[in-house]
Amino acid sequence: MPAGEIRYASPPPTMVDSSCDDDAWVWTQIKAEARRDAESEPALASYLYSTILSHPSLERSLAFHLGNKLCSSTLLSTLLYDLFLNAFTSDPSLRAAAVADLRAARERDPACLSYSHCLLNYKGFLACQAHRVAHRLWQQSRRPLALALHSRIADVFAVDIHPAAKIGKGILFDHATGVVVGETAVIGNNVSILHHVTLGGTGKMGGDRHPKIGDGVLIGAGATILGNVKIGEGAKIGAGSVVLIDVPARTTAVGNPARLVGGKEKPSKHEDVPGESMDHTSFISEWSDYII
Amino acid sequence: MPAGEIRYASPPPTMVDSSCDDDAWVWTQIKAEARRDAESEPALASYLYSTILSHPSLERSLAFHLGNKLCSSTLLSTLLYDLFLNAFTSDPSLRAAAVADLRAARERDPACLSYSHCLLNYKGFLACQAHRVAHRLWQQSRRPLALALHSRIADVFAVDIHPAAKIGKGILFDHATGVVVGETAVIGNNVSILHHVTLGGTGKMGGDRHPKIGDGVLIGAGATILGNVKIGEGAKIGAGSVVLIDVPARTTAVGNPARLVGGKEKPSKHEDVPGESMDHTSFISEWSDYII
Amino acid sequence: MPAGEIRYASPPPTMVDSSCDDDAWVWTQIKAEARRDAESEPALASYLYSTILSHPSLERSLAFHLGNKLCSSTLLSTLLYDLFLNAFTSDPSLRAAAVADLRAARERDPACLSYSHCLLNYKGFLACQAHRVAHRLWQQSRRPLALALHSRIADVFAVDIHPAAKIGKGILFDHATGVVVGETAVIGNNVSILHHVTLGGTGKMGGDRHPKIGDGVLIGAGATILGNVKIGEGAKIGAGSVVLIDVPARTTAVGNPARLVGGKEKPSKHEDVPGESMDHTSFISEWSDYII
Amino acid sequence: MPAGEIRYASPPPTMVDSSCDDDAWVWTQIKAEARRDAESEPALASYLYSTILSHPSLERSLAFHLGNKLCSSTLLSTLLYDLFLNAFTSDPSLRAAAVADLRAARERDPACLSYSHCLLNYKGFLACQAHRVAHRLWQQSRRPLALALHSRIADVFAVDIHPAAKIGKGILFDHATGVVVGETAVIGNNVSILHHVTLGGTGKMGGDRHPKIGDGVLIGAGATILGNVKIGEGAKIGAGSVVLIDVPARTTAVGNPARLVGGKEKPSKHEDVPGESMDHTSFISEWSDYII
Amino acid sequence: MPAGEIRYASPPPTMVDSSCDDDAWVWTQIKAEARRDAESEPALASYLYSTILSHPSLERSLAFHLGNKLCSSTLLSTLLYDLFLNAFTSDPSLRAAAVADLRAARERDPACLSYSHCLLNYKGFLACQAHRVAHRLWQQSRRPLALALHSRIADVFAVDIHPAAKIGKGILFDHATGVVVGETAVIGNNVSILHHVTLGGTGKMGGDRHPKIGDGVLIGAGATILGNVKIGEGAKIGAGSVVLIDVPARTTAVGNPARLVGGKEKPSKHEDVPGESMDHTSFISEWSDYII
Amino acid sequence: MPAGEIRYASPPPTMVDSSCDDDAWVWTQIKAEARRDAESEPALASYLYSTILSHPSLERSLAFHLGNKLCSSTLLSTLLYDLFLNAFTSDPSLRAAAVADLRAARERDPACLSYSHCLLNYKGFLACQAHRVAHRLWQQSRRPLALALHSRIADVFAVDIHPAAKIGKGILFDHATGVVVGETAVIGNNVSILHHVTLGGTGKMGGDRHPKIGDGVLIGAGATILGNVKIGEGAKIGAGSVVLIDVPARTTAVGNPARLVGGKEKPSKHEDVPGESMDHTSFISEWSDYII
Repeated sequence: MPAGEIRYASPPPTMVDSSCDDDAWVWTQIKAEARRDAESEPALASYLYSTILSHPSLERSLAFHLGNKLCSSTLLSTLLYDLFLNAFTSDPSLRAAAVADLRAARERDPACLSYSHCLLNYKGFLACQAHRVAHRLWQQSRRPLALALHSRIADVFAVDIHPAAKIGKGILFDHATGVVVGETAVIGNNVSILHHVTLGGTGKMGGDRHPKIGDGVLIGAGATILGNVKIGEGAKIGAGSVVLIDVPARTTAVGNPARLVGGKEKPSKHEDVPGESMDHTSFISEWSDYII
Repeated sequence: MPAGEIRYASPPPTMVDSSCDDDAWVWTQIKAEARRDAESEPALASYLYSTILSHPSLERSLAFHLGNKLCSSTLLSTLLYDLFLNAFTSDPSLRAAAVADLRAARERDPACLSYSHCLLNYKGFLACQAHRVAHRLWQQSRRPLALALHSRIADVFAVDIHPAAKIGKGILFDHATGVVVGETAVIGNNVSILHHVTLGGTGKMGGDRHPKIGDGVLIGAGATILGNVKIGEGAKIGAGSVVLIDVPARTTAVGNPARLVGGKEKPSKHEDVPGESMDHTSFISEWSDYII
Repeated sequence: MPAGEIRYASPPPTMVDSSCDDDAWVWTQIKAEARRDAESEPALASYLYSTILSHPSLERSLAFHLGNKLCSSTLLSTLLYDLFLNAFTSDPSLRAAAVADLRAARERDPACLSYSHCLLNYKGFLACQAHRVAHRLWQQSRRPLALALHSRIADVFAVDIHPAAKIGKGILFDHATGVVVGETAVIGNNVSILHHVTLGGTGKMGGDRHPKIGDGVLIGAGATILGNVKIGEGAKIGAGSVVLIDVPARTTAVGNPARLVGGKEKPSKHEDVPGESMDHTSFISEWSDYII
Repeated sequence: MPAGEIRYASPPPTMVDSSCDDDAWVWTQIKAEARRDAESEPALASYLYSTILSHPSLERSLAFHLGNKLCSSTLLSTLLYDLFLNAFTSDPSLRAAAVADLRAARERDPACLSYSHCLLNYKGFLACQAHRVAHRLWQQSRRPLALALHSRIADVFAVDIHPAAKIGKGILFDHATGVVVGETAVIGNNVSILHHVTLGGTGKMGGDRHPKIGDGVLIGAGATILGNVKIGEGAKIGAGSVVLIDVPARTTAVGNPARLVGGKEKPSKHEDVPGESMDHTSFISEWSDYII
Repeated sequence: MPAGEIRYASPPPTMVDSSCDDDAWVWTQIKAEARRDAESEPALASYLYSTILSHPSLERSLAFHLGNKLCSSTLLSTLLYDLFLNAFTSDPSLRAAAVADLRAARERDPACLSYSHCLLNYKGFLACQAHRVAHRLWQQSRRPLALALHSRIADVFAVDIHPAAKIGKGILFDHATGVVVGETAVIGNNVSILHHVTLGGTGKMGGDRHPKIGDGVLIGAGATILGNVKIGEGAKIGAGSVVLIDVPARTTAVGNPARLVGGKEKPSKHEDVPGESMDHTSFISEWSDYII
Repeated sequence: MPAGEIRYASPPPTMVDSSCDDDAWVWTQIKAEARRDAESEPALASYLYSTILSHPSLERSLAFHLGNKLCSSTLLSTLLYDLFLNAFTSDPSLRAAAVADLRAARERDPACLSYSHCLLNYKGFLACQAHRVAHRLWQQSRRPLALALHSRIADVFAVDIHPAAKIGKGILFDHATGVVVGETAVIGNNVSILHHVTLGGTGKMGGDRHPKIGDGVLIGAGATILGNVKIGEGAKIGAGSVVLIDVPARTTAVGNPARLVGGKEKPSKHEDVPGESMDHTSFISEWSDYII
């Protein structure tokens, strides 16, 4: 069955900087999608009204949805809702980042049928928005609360991002289960990270010990990047790779242990931004040549 | 401690086609097991009565168990129970598939003590049955509901199977955590798939972009298979492999990137059906010879 | 931001055998930490009181926390609380093991700010304590209950440890998502295991079929160890490795398939105990030399 | 503020016998009301969809609503939903009775704005429908289940109707809190009973020991009727009365102890059917004359 | 339908002092009843196992049942279970009182089919047992906790007994909804109190201001007794009475305001103990004579 | 036991108009009480932090507490919290009324130990605050939502106040169970109403049909007032009375049917304000004289 045939209204050309107008457009779009779905599927209408259609803004919808997803018997939904709502209201950059992430999923993931599909169902998207709030708490030195939130995200979504980790905008955590991002990791803008990816540390010493991921990087499923290494802008990390070295901009590292496609001395450079183009496998023939 | 010493009544010889009689036998067996367990363990009796012993049929038991497992504060158990029950009642092939999967776990997994053990506790089994219902909704063009169900399965079981993916019968998702199966993937009959296995896509283009897994294939833990490649009938994929190429029938692919044991030109062929024999490691010596 | 700057009171020098006094010290410490956090963060105070500060002992705190984390609509928190409390009260070694695990996290994980941080938030810690209770039930031949508990741990924490598996003390399951430990696996003392690690079996035959992990071993993220192989005391398994062979004491195995650093014949020996030193990557240069 | 100004479409003339067509008309009406309310009040739309608009029939809506209202942590909503749905499906007279009760509320209670208002919010209506199911279970000799349901109704609605009590159709339990109806009580058709009304027994002897209420009776708030007395057709019992004697048809009993208005020998007869006309107080002047 | 035909094993002759043996007999009886009901009604078996059959003692069963009935999102079932279990374990008189109350219901209420029926379903019984625990907390000067428990009992059962009120043994709160018992009220042994009964105070002054109810008293439905009045041993208060005066032993007060049957000067004396005989209405003819 | 001995800081002299300063004083007091209780009773600390101590204002505390008390599986706590918080934030008179009601309980009810005791535990207080929000919704023509809230209040607290009813400030609903207040009822300021009181209508006609209660009125337990009658300022209605007539200011009506103490022509007048003095029974001797 050809996927995409019921895809919803296509997005306007991406604007370089997500603006308020742009954010509003996305929210309008989400409500229209939800309304259409509620009409076509009464069994889901209650869910769509409670999560989207009853809310006046994306921030409230997200705060409600995250509060209900992440609550437990000892951390009540009302407490979490309040926490999220306060954060989203105080810091407008959180909304802008959420919109950029929604766009990222919609544009890069062919299985993403609509913005509301991502907002409601993508555990990577939801974990990332909750992380942003945990990160804000961390920066405000509210660490115990940040860590409690972190723990709930790790339990509910199986996505484990330390609240101190810095994450840019326009991020796609695709599938997301099993992602681990360490305390001193930094992720740039427009990065795409598949499931089971680890940005891990190197041992029991504290300090700056996790990877730095440049803008536009694509990290394939199951890749493990360890230590304070630098993955240059627009680089690509093959699925299942174990990366313990720096990877220059716009090059591809693959294998276990990962090596640069084209060779350490003169690695092949690609032109596209893989974090956006999502081209996972174009290196295959070259890789085969190189390795076998 | 020798496992298996308290294993329950052994199954009758597998019938080629799961028939109604066969299904009834399994359900009778499940009730007998649950009754014995309830007697020996009063602390568990309430659970066993609510999930199994109070129900007149496997379909109702499954609908109840899945409804309670997958519900959330915004998707109520009653709604999901209704949804599952309607699906199981309307489409008898769903029950037959569940029975075939129960048999697969019981026969292939030495840690599976009984049918009821699988029915109650195997997240891979439960995720797969819920997926079959999501897939049915998808085929009926009830996509928003299918995706909402997909999202709950991914949250609760950490098993992420796109509702459009086609899955055969007699499937064992062993351990199951972290399994990701993409939109256009197809899985044949009698396949065994370990945890952390990815059947992934290749990028942002839509269309047919995920693996096709033949009957009787065995895919080891953590294997990543990407793109519209064909894994032939009875093939075996080693744990941790990254597969970007077709794998012929009854051959074994291992490594990152995966290569055929015996060599590309004349790969070794095995006689058994690894999806059923579950022989994970017989290729080791050969592999070592080949690679090192 | 330099991590650790708000770290709590540092622990006394580790005692060789965790004694009652030591256990009491840790519990006193946990209450002091929780009290400080409750004062600084009113939004979290309710949570801290319900999980820690209202309880007279570590056992009761843990029983409450696990009961509430692992409960479901069909396995009530009161039932689980009772089960945990009975186990912790009847078997003091469970408390000693929990304290040793708390110490392991606190000493080996630079991101672990305090004992209470681990007690409340580390899914690996919580899954391990719940497993110890499931294991005790298994040994008492209360298998259906052990397996039901196993299933809840696997659902809630995405950590899948068979209740028959034997696990020592001073264990750190870091991040923990996706860990799978099979029925006949044995894990020694002071072992550190990262997320996505598999200690798996080899097929459909029962019997002793899973790895034996010696004391002080470190197993990197995503490593897959299959079959009844022996990982010697103080050995190190690199991230992403696929290990199908025995690994001698104090050596390092890396790669897919894993080979010994320094070569099969005369592998390099290290002096430290990697399960405690957590040195993940010191082998990199040597590895590179060896492989490439 | 003049009540009723936003009252919904007025009902068709009451038919003597509630027929299928009539039932269908009421359900259509309920859905139309809910749709209008959902549109005007997004905050309530989720509730309206889950309780009414997602259901194909009044029976399913009621089963869902009652299942969710009456469930507890030990009697799950899925179990109760199933129980109610089975009863409503097996016994069409339950639906007819529900429709007659909806009409009774809509016609007799000026505060009842719409059918959906009653269906969703009237605890007397809901308690009565749940009682009918408990009564059916009682008649089927499923007494323990009937009594468990009885207990939930008494807890949730503070309405305590013994499952053996026989209740007619077209009943209005107005406000309903505190109503107690004993085991051998019988209530006719078109009866209106206010809150805190007791139809009680006379002591510790079993047997037929509770009141028999004729058709069209009106029982005022707080009235207590004790023993196997007969309240004749169309009689009226004043608020706060304590009735220990038979009351002839179409007469009024008031006071503590209750006496007949107009005197025992020749009580005043009224023409209307007070259970339908709901005239609570027309006897006042006469009463005053009689008593004071 | 003749009630009682399926009544369970009849009780042994009441012993003057409830002894341990007697308590054990009742618990054995309860388990036998529950087992029979579970067998005959699979839909209820889960409930019966969780509330009764999985527990080794009446105390644990009651603690579990009350913990789950009275919990809320801010007062967790595990906390309440612990609280009840501690009280029942520390103070054996609580169990003895519970058994005496169970006997009272079984012997005096013809609608009470079995001990388990009362244990599970009688809100008056459950409210009374929870009150005894609240009273114990009050006496231990744990007033805020006693009042929180009081509030939950009032919400869940609509039974409002101040934790300071002193209540004897062998009490039957029949139907129980709406019962209000004030702070300085005292209730003797073997008292029967119907629903909507108030033992209230007289104003805003503190001090001893509520009724004192002697042994063996019967108070009819809806009776209101106000002020520090004394209701003598074996007295009877008619339904709906408003009592503002002392009532001598073995006399009957009826009416609003209540007067003594037989006259103030020489009231009629009855021979039986109405709290046990439950004779509500024998005074009727005499009353009529007296009043009208 | 002499009540009051552990009473908390006594209130400042009542101010005629509750001002912002006064409101702030009460909130400060509540927090101090809760802090003291949390310290003395660790088992309750979690509850006190979640309901009071984690909140920056009385409004937020109330919104949280009501949201969690009134929520159900189909009306989520987050939705209700939001609803209450919006109302309290938009309309400061709601806070002032809440403070006046808190003061009323603290001053008039000798069993009220503290403001926090009332805030947390008095179902009459909580039902009244929730009613005020429902009334505001009603006035904003958001009737379906107002009625849904009304229904939840009636279920949870057994207090049934029609959202259209107008209620003043400084109200004490003491015990509160069973209170019913009809659509066109009006209640003045500083009124005290005991449990089971009905302010009811007269039949099926719409329009102005419920009682009008003047300032300072006291209505005793179980009193039933029916019809559009006027209860004059400072009047007193005896417990259990059935009032169908106007009652002049500062007079007392008692009995069933109620008559004025002192006689219809020249009723006795009292000097105090019974709604504040709470003198329930001073009329007794006079009443006895009058009636008997």
